Amino acid sequence: MTAKMAADLMRGLGFEVKTGIAGTGVVGLLRGASSGPTVALRADMDSLPVFEDTGRPWCSKVNGRMHACGHDGHTAMLMGAAWVLSMMKDKLKGDVKFIFQPSEEKDGGAEPMIEAGIMEDPHVDAIFATHIWPDVRLGSVKVHHGPAMASLDAFDAKLYGRGGHVATPHKSLDAITAAGQFLMQLQTIVSREIDPTEPVVVSVGTINGGTAYNAIAHEVAMTGTVRAVNPSLREILRNKIEMKLKGVAEATSTEYAYNYHFGYPPVVNNTEMAEFVHSTAGRILGKDSSGYAERPSLVGEDFAYFAKKAPGAIYLLGVGDDSISKYPLHHPKFDFDERALETGVRLHAQLAVDYLAGRSADGSI
Amino acid sequence: MTAKMAADLMRGLGFEVKTGIAGTGVVGLLRGASSGPTVALRADMDSLPVFEDTGRPWCSKVNGRMHACGHDGHTAMLMGAAWVLSMMKDKLKGDVKFIFQPSEEKDGGAEPMIEAGIMEDPHVDAIFATHIWPDVRLGSVKVHHGPAMASLDAFDAKLYGRGGHVATPHKSLDAITAAGQFLMQLQTIVSREIDPTEPVVVSVGTINGGTAYNAIAHEVAMTGTVRAVNPSLREILRNKIEMKLKGVAEATSTEYAYNYHFGYPPVVNNTEMAEFVHSTAGRILGKDSSGYAERPSLVGEDFAYFAKKAPGAIYLLGVGDDSISKYPLHHPKFDFDERALETGVRLHAQLAVDYLAGRSADGSI
Amino acid sequence: MTAKMAADLMRGLGFEVKTGIAGTGVVGLLRGASSGPTVALRADMDSLPVFEDTGRPWCSKVNGRMHACGHDGHTAMLMGAAWVLSMMKDKLKGDVKFIFQPSEEKDGGAEPMIEAGIMEDPHVDAIFATHIWPDVRLGSVKVHHGPAMASLDAFDAKLYGRGGHVATPHKSLDAITAAGQFLMQLQTIVSREIDPTEPVVVSVGTINGGTAYNAIAHEVAMTGTVRAVNPSLREILRNKIEMKLKGVAEATSTEYAYNYHFGYPPVVNNTEMAEFVHSTAGRILGKDSSGYAERPSLVGEDFAYFAKKAPGAIYLLGVGDDSISKYPLHHPKFDFDERALETGVRLHAQLAVDYLAGRSADGSI
Amino acid sequence: MTAKMAADLMRGLGFEVKTGIAGTGVVGLLRGASSGPTVALRADMDSLPVFEDTGRPWCSKVNGRMHACGHDGHTAMLMGAAWVLSMMKDKLKGDVKFIFQPSEEKDGGAEPMIEAGIMEDPHVDAIFATHIWPDVRLGSVKVHHGPAMASLDAFDAKLYGRGGHVATPHKSLDAITAAGQFLMQLQTIVSREIDPTEPVVVSVGTINGGTAYNAIAHEVAMTGTVRAVNPSLREILRNKIEMKLKGVAEATSTEYAYNYHFGYPPVVNNTEMAEFVHSTAGRILGKDSSGYAERPSLVGEDFAYFAKKAPGAIYLLGVGDDSISKYPLHHPKFDFDERALETGVRLHAQLAVDYLAGRSADGSI
Repeated sequence: MTAKMAADLMRGLGFEVKTGIAGTGVVGLLRGASSGPTVALRADMDSLPVFEDTGRPWCSKVNGRMHACGHDGHTAMLMGAAWVLSMMKDKLKGDVKFIFQPSEEKDGGAEPMIEAGIMEDPHVDAIFATHIWPDVRLGSVKVHHGPAMASLDAFDAKLYGRGGHVATPHKSLDAITAAGQFLMQLQTIVSREIDPTEPVVVSVGTINGGTAYNAIAHEVAMTGTVRAVNPSLREILRNKIEMKLKGVAEATSTEYAYNYHFGYPPVVNNTEMAEFVHSTAGRILGKDSSGYAERPSLVGEDFAYFAKKAPGAIYLLGVGDDSISKYPLHHPKFDFDERALETGVRLHAQLAVDYLAGRSADGSI
Repeated sequence: MTAKMAADLMRGLGFEVKTGIAGTGVVGLLRGASSGPTVALRADMDSLPVFEDTGRPWCSKVNGRMHACGHDGHTAMLMGAAWVLSMMKDKLKGDVKFIFQPSEEKDGGAEPMIEAGIMEDPHVDAIFATHIWPDVRLGSVKVHHGPAMASLDAFDAKLYGRGGHVATPHKSLDAITAAGQFLMQLQTIVSREIDPTEPVVVSVGTINGGTAYNAIAHEVAMTGTVRAVNPSLREILRNKIEMKLKGVAEATSTEYAYNYHFGYPPVVNNTEMAEFVHSTAGRILGKDSSGYAERPSLVGEDFAYFAKKAPGAIYLLGVGDDSISKYPLHHPKFDFDERALETGVRLHAQLAVDYLAGRSADGSI
Repeated sequence: MTAKMAADLMRGLGFEVKTGIAGTGVVGLLRGASSGPTVALRADMDSLPVFEDTGRPWCSKVNGRMHACGHDGHTAMLMGAAWVLSMMKDKLKGDVKFIFQPSEEKDGGAEPMIEAGIMEDPHVDAIFATHIWPDVRLGSVKVHHGPAMASLDAFDAKLYGRGGHVATPHKSLDAITAAGQFLMQLQTIVSREIDPTEPVVVSVGTINGGTAYNAIAHEVAMTGTVRAVNPSLREILRNKIEMKLKGVAEATSTEYAYNYHFGYPPVVNNTEMAEFVHSTAGRILGKDSSGYAERPSLVGEDFAYFAKKAPGAIYLLGVGDDSISKYPLHHPKFDFDERALETGVRLHAQLAVDYLAGRSADGSI
Repeated sequence: MTAKMAADLMRGLGFEVKTGIAGTGVVGLLRGASSGPTVALRADMDSLPVFEDTGRPWCSKVNGRMHACGHDGHTAMLMGAAWVLSMMKDKLKGDVKFIFQPSEEKDGGAEPMIEAGIMEDPHVDAIFATHIWPDVRLGSVKVHHGPAMASLDAFDAKLYGRGGHVATPHKSLDAITAAGQFLMQLQTIVSREIDPTEPVVVSVGTINGGTAYNAIAHEVAMTGTVRAVNPSLREILRNKIEMKLKGVAEATSTEYAYNYHFGYPPVVNNTEMAEFVHSTAGRILGKDSSGYAERPSLVGEDFAYFAKKAPGAIYLLGVGDDSISKYPLHHPKFDFDERALETGVRLHAQLAVDYLAGRSADGSI
């Protein structure tokens, strides 16, 4: 329904619109008055499996689904920017592509949309996106000068022992005690084996094993995630986790199964685009309201795929420091001050206008 | 239905029969020709939640319930003994009480039957029971001279952390990593803190924690069991487990919940009764077919309550060393050679006759 | 000097004496009036590297050496028995061999004395020894009916990492953290992998690693001991420790070195000899003052070698329950009530006399 | 002797020289032709307790002492700069203070020199230093824009158990097993409890415990270090380590002792000074030979104290990428290409000249 609204709006504004891309993805193309490069603006549209508890008038009407990560805001801002830019069409020295992407939170909509060809025809020369961010002050933005967000990999590990009667533990192989050893050894990857200046998380999120309090557990299943900003660490981390599993299995005569799923790559902002966002935001929000983010965040974002395809930057749109945004992203009570939406719309539009203006003039921005 | 068969048989034999004791418990009283002491013989009747896979003609007809611990054999042998002893009534210098007990495997039928008064009126002077035992050779028995089986306590432990996004683990408290520490510390109770000559098991049988692979787990729940032959260790073990939980909680800022359930006490055979079983079995089975069990077994048995109430002994009835009993107790394919049943019937009857004979003569056996 | 005193005494009493056996070992032979079997009595003579702190008149005069395990008492009692038996020579129906053994605490004097031939010429038919025991009441003895004391094995384990600057732990391999993992995994051998009814100790006694607080440790060295009453577990335990080392090394990319030294075997009393000690002690000390020891002790004793060579038993001579023996064996303040010495002399003599008498009469005792 | 050479040189050049400051510290003052601000240049002079193994002609003549951290180079370069700047005296619009500091590697010479007043009289307006750096290419420099190096704290921790005979571990408290638990728990500080984007090291460098392989260890002593770039983490880390110790002590009934020593604070370059170094180096070495260091290094440097006293920056002088510097700092074979010395002298001099020139003109640089 969100996708339909975006498509209807853009059709109404006279854009060239394609729908149903990689599911419910929508792309609209606004052709500027004069020819030139193409800049893309992207918003993600999907919700989370959270029971909303904000009590606000625009509260989710679908039980157990909530825009707890601000994607409704992202979509609204991009629709606002579509409307604003449609009115500035005469000033646009090139084209603007509006990308409404599904499934950022789950299986990823960015990669299949790219595979469906949305970054071509016309070719996208630069791409920008924003994310509502409670840790940044309302009215201001921050942008990472390079590495911005983490890769988002997943693993599941099982240890197989041999079940049996608890009266004779020596005739069994206790998978739970083996899992305890694995959990402890796992900590040493981050604490001892990875460069301490590299932001990395290795985390087991679920553990389930055993069937009865008075039996030796045959099997323990664990699932977890790995985050890193440096992409070259992903393969290393995958192997290190397996090394710990293997070592524990050797020490305990248990066996293991292990699957590692490479998810989104890290988001790395193009430094030139980051500087461009920084400068544009400083100009329209005030110098004190635009800054570089000091450190990457270990959340993941499939904007990463867009940023690998074209020079791009995602920036953090401040909604913090007010009485509304006191809950973190993904929280059932997450909410934000709508004044941020205006800031977002202005930035979207200004970035598009400035980018096209700068690029058309002398090839740089 | 098993209970009804036992009751019907004993009524048919002219015993005084009481039914419906502590559930489906049945007690029959056979009064001997001359007055004297009372000896009790006990069998447990209950099955286990196991899907039988023996393919034998007498296979369980109730899906998901199986006599996987030999209790059908125990009941059959006691019914056989009732029939045999009814025919020897003239020789009995006292009374024989037949106790058919429910719920040995689960919540315990022994204690509530005792509370219902079955050890009185007439007062039970001695009590015997047997257990089918794959580790003892068919045709022979073993009896423990003192401590025979373990106490059977249960515990559940929870560690409560604080859930959160995996990108910021420092803002959460990871209950799974805390549980890993607890699992490791738990091992030191048996390995370092308990007299190595004391048979003790401390075992976590189930662990469940966390809700998503990419979130920090708020909570981990574990259940486990504690076995000890020395009853004075039970309180100590309860406290030591809590000490580990508490130490881990302190070290990790998590919180814990802990419940310890004191179950069956250890089975301690009366040494005089054990010697009596040893000697009687040696006489009727041959000297080489009666022995003392070298070490206690860490299984539990609520015969423990009977043995605390009256001098008593439980002995292990051999079903081992043949092609049938190659699966352990509680296994879906557990089965035994029926020739053992004859041995059990003979021993039940002989113990009753001899006990009453000896006791009536000179006050000792 | 102790050895010389024993030799001089026995020479003075007219025994055939050999000295300098396996170091300072001394053997004296007292030939009885009539020919018959040979019974041996053994005492160990060596001291411990402990600084004595008893303040008693007979306190050790050698600094840093103390008879902290009661061996001075053992030697004194055997000398007393030599003197008593020399006076009863006419009643002896066979020969008595007196064995004064060095180095029980360290490298073992029993095995080399046996290799030197002291159990032959004349062949020893039975052997007895005693050990002063604070846990047994003064004036009484206890004897094990079978397994009495543990095997005494030693191991040393090293983990080799790769040293380096602490600022870059990922370029090093931290041997200390690897050792922490090994220490934890080691606990699971006793807690999970060995029959809980088997008395076993696996213990690391020393750990040393690293050279500077601000460097990654290249190497950690550990030494430890393994005790078991069941000799078939020794090989298993040796291998399990290595499995843990190997598993940790695999998981941490460290390397390991491992040596296991099989020391004294378990002491297993011959059951017939144990019954003989029990009966003799009961006769001369009173029935309540002779008992069977319920459980093996996990100390080691190289009497084990004598007990493998001839039917034999070592019994525990009570020195407990008085104000003197409040410190354990090996403690700098260990002391005992000398009245125990008289009990020991009487038992030594009576066991020799009775054994020879019984054996000479009908071939059994 | 090094200190004397520096003092003699500067006296010969006509500087005002003070010696014996905070040990062997030397400060020389070169007054420029016109009055103006004061810029300080600092070199550390001390060696390390390493046995040099370079075989070079200028190899250390003191056995077991080596300039393994390049401080001989630092001193040489500052002496060179003194000579160069003395010849440019006419162009200096202010004063240059030359600081030769002892004891950077050990107890710290910076702080006591500051306490002795060397940053005043005349007041130091800015301070620069360099460090030879194998990870930076020869002929180039890198400078941190803000946090540059880590705090350097130390701790020692002891766990006290209760020694005893290994045969009865339950009567003792095993300090070594407790230490194993502590080592494992310690890892969770970095892996789970600190912001993953904060560079932190918590490391145990030495462990020593126990006195005999066959006794339970009474005590284990550990020493370690903590590094952090964010100074607000130091107190938190101190407390977290104690929390782990306390939790383990609670869980094992052991006791602990803990000392934490706050050492050098983190080195934080003044961003303006860092930009000044970057720009000056780019000008004289070429744009490609001057860069910002991407990440802080977790080494410590007591230049931190100078940088807290005056706007300052330490920069990394490349000696890498040649056949000589293949060994890391502190290695017995550490060596560097002397061509780096010329680069260092030029940079020292240029920074001083430029700083004074810029500052005197318009108050900024």
